[in-house]
Amino acid sequence: MSYQRRLNLNVGLNTLGYLGNAWPYRTGTRHDIYDPQYYLRLARLAHQGVFDAVFYSDMPLLRPDPNSRPLHTLDPLILLTWLAGQVPDIGLVATMSSTYNSPFNLARRTQALDVLSGGRLVVNMVSNFVPEVAANFGDDPLPPRPVRYPRASEFVTVAKKLWRSWDPKRARPLPEGQFWDPEAEVQPANHKGAHFSVKGAINVPVSPQGQPVIAQAGGSDLGIDLAAQHGEIIYCNILSRGAGQEFRRKVNERALVHGRDPSTIRLVPGLVAIIGETREEALRKHELFSGAGSEDTLIAQFIREHGIDPQGFDPDKILNAEDFIPDQNRVMAVGFTQGLVELLRHEKLTARQAVRRSAGNHRLVLGTAEEVADQIIDLWADGTVDGYTFQPPRAPDDIEEFVARVIPILQDRGVYPKAYTPGETVRQRYGLPWPHAAEPAPARDKALA
Amino acid sequence: MSYQRRLNLNVGLNTLGYLGNAWPYRTGTRHDIYDPQYYLRLARLAHQGVFDAVFYSDMPLLRPDPNSRPLHTLDPLILLTWLAGQVPDIGLVATMSSTYNSPFNLARRTQALDVLSGGRLVVNMVSNFVPEVAANFGDDPLPPRPVRYPRASEFVTVAKKLWRSWDPKRARPLPEGQFWDPEAEVQPANHKGAHFSVKGAINVPVSPQGQPVIAQAGGSDLGIDLAAQHGEIIYCNILSRGAGQEFRRKVNERALVHGRDPSTIRLVPGLVAIIGETREEALRKHELFSGAGSEDTLIAQFIREHGIDPQGFDPDKILNAEDFIPDQNRVMAVGFTQGLVELLRHEKLTARQAVRRSAGNHRLVLGTAEEVADQIIDLWADGTVDGYTFQPPRAPDDIEEFVARVIPILQDRGVYPKAYTPGETVRQRYGLPWPHAAEPAPARDKALA
Repeated sequence: MSYQRRLNLNVGLNTLGYLGNAWPYRTGTRHDIYDPQYYLRLARLAHQGVFDAVFYSDMPLLRPDPNSRPLHTLDPLILLTWLAGQVPDIGLVATMSSTYNSPFNLARRTQALDVLSGGRLVVNMVSNFVPEVAANFGDDPLPPRPVRYPRASEFVTVAKKLWRSWDPKRARPLPEGQFWDPEAEVQPANHKGAHFSVKGAINVPVSPQGQPVIAQAGGSDLGIDLAAQHGEIIYCNILSRGAGQEFRRKVNERALVHGRDPSTIRLVPGLVAIIGETREEALRKHELFSGAGSEDTLIAQFIREHGIDPQGFDPDKILNAEDFIPDQNRVMAVGFTQGLVELLRHEKLTARQAVRRSAGNHRLVLGTAEEVADQIIDLWADGTVDGYTFQPPRAPDDIEEFVARVIPILQDRGVYPKAYTPGETVRQRYGLPWPHAAEPAPARDKALA
Repeated sequence: MSYQRRLNLNVGLNTLGYLGNAWPYRTGTRHDIYDPQYYLRLARLAHQGVFDAVFYSDMPLLRPDPNSRPLHTLDPLILLTWLAGQVPDIGLVATMSSTYNSPFNLARRTQALDVLSGGRLVVNMVSNFVPEVAANFGDDPLPPRPVRYPRASEFVTVAKKLWRSWDPKRARPLPEGQFWDPEAEVQPANHKGAHFSVKGAINVPVSPQGQPVIAQAGGSDLGIDLAAQHGEIIYCNILSRGAGQEFRRKVNERALVHGRDPSTIRLVPGLVAIIGETREEALRKHELFSGAGSEDTLIAQFIREHGIDPQGFDPDKILNAEDFIPDQNRVMAVGFTQGLVELLRHEKLTARQAVRRSAGNHRLVLGTAEEVADQIIDLWADGTVDGYTFQPPRAPDDIEEFVARVIPILQDRGVYPKAYTPGETVRQRYGLPWPHAAEPAPARDKALA
């Protein structure tokens, strides 16, 4: 079988892995979470697996919960910059807050990394939704979602103006003794909007990929609208084919409303993969890594998480999607439980089946390496998704296993590259267009312009 | 001759060198200013010269002046993080704005780099004084100096609380299945002040040197007070022995008022060195690199810069210091012309002599490599200064020359190391104490605790 498209794969590298209860089963010590050499090792492992990009989620918060463990430590932009100097090729996804950064500083710093890395940065713009985060940035309460999203959208609009505000390629021939041609090179942002006022240009030039690729996440209606407006790569929770196709349709509709070509948007939902020598072994690992230890406890966790009355609950009865609809104004990210609702709308599932379909709210694929590879290709082959953001239950163990056992299968099936294309930007790797319609791409980007 | 102390030397690596008019005489192209490989080459050159640290000044502003050239491009924190992964040992001085950053983000990001670099970060905290910078961060005008400085001081106070807010070394023995001990490890900032309110802890642990070293610059009375309150390394404009000793006395007095031990403060003023085969050749290079071309034009520049009436001006008449006193409320950095005032107060100089004593407002040393080395050791040997921040007129040329010709002389004289001490933090290299009085330093820092 041969494919025209290419399967895009990112890998999440936050601290000890994605599943909060899996750390007792990993290799390493608790001090790994702030050990630079540990992160360098993970990034090199990801490079060995020819992943398109490494992904760091983030929250500017240390939650002092003794029953949990820190998932976010070293600032993603700083950590990725440090890794960029030591690991070639691989893309770098930095999650950054549009709520608690200024557009000028964010645009300047991200473009600096995009220049330094040779066009490998993806900025995952999020708005913060946790009140404890707000308290780290002053006395003002968290803005409500209907304020946060228009503000986030304006933030990205300003960032785009800033990213293209200085382009030395616009210079005209210079008279003797003159260093540059700011009149032609510099186009100040001159932005005045409801939320931001930014006068000048940033002092970092247009990067090798024009500007960082913009990623967005968010499953609420407002989140989907924002993603459709600005997102080039969209992280989402897609647990089934039907749900994925409906999500794509919604995003495409909103993209057209915003005057965007939907074919320039990539969906790379989260994916948790658990590999065993047999499917049975993978099921047992799933129970362990979830902190449950048995299928019954998995189901009990599900009941508790969703606030279901355990009295008389039948784990083998078909679930009703409408019972799981999240409040659009809830504090938690709406996208997370929305994934389950969409799954239940598209497939008739019992709790016993549903608990095996997601882990940490992302799609769960379980089984032998072959079975895992099959399930990854499955929703990709018919275009439901463009690829996945692999979230290893444990790091480094499950990344090592995935690279050693699943990646070679994907390569053998001809859906995934065996090596990086030298000098390729992450924008090119995702098949995304040069971002400045009015200005030509450099020669090597011509095909994409 | 043998010395107990060690000469500290930093080197400024901004774009094409320190003197705005010297770029036509340098090696390279105008595209170097945003070329990552160029900065990597400069940092490796600095490492070869065993400099204590590389220094980047900064301003979040692109001034579209066709008669000037950009001095600040890639964000210093990002550029230094990228360099840190590729160049070992050397300290990293990042200039950062306390006016246009939030304490939480700044403390978290700087501590992340301090962890990643193994304790090599110096944060040079400045408050911005240029109205065009303010316009990049909203509609509010620049706060006046009497507001900016107390705000800057509170900013550093909050940053210090945050830098020590999470220390995993405080953990008690952990029960089975518990990952960490936040009750003991985490001490939230809980800061409420006139300018900032910050609740939590940062999610980056105490770094190998406790926290980044704090550098300060500023020559106004308020600037000196701020430096005396928080600065461990002070950048300043010191053009003569008398002026330097008076500056040190002022800083020490204010340090005692703030309850600090003055022996924990290092003065490393700026220094421009121009080396020739003969002193005559160095004088001619000075004229060229200043954009003057002759001594007469150097003097004419001096007259223009200081708003002196050229009519009947005698370049060989002794200057009066009081004629040069800057307005403490002027927009420009007060420290810059203050250096000249102090020079003229301590030495009787004509304009013809004065123009050879500073370049770009910093101390100028001119002559053969031996003469330059002599002048560097001169004010250091009697303790007027602790070292210098070498500002090369042209980069890379004058760094190459300094490393090849002056550094070996300093090494031969026994005042400067021939190699780095492996694993040494920049704090140790400057002989500065472990910053957390209440908590012990790690074993290797015991001697400094």
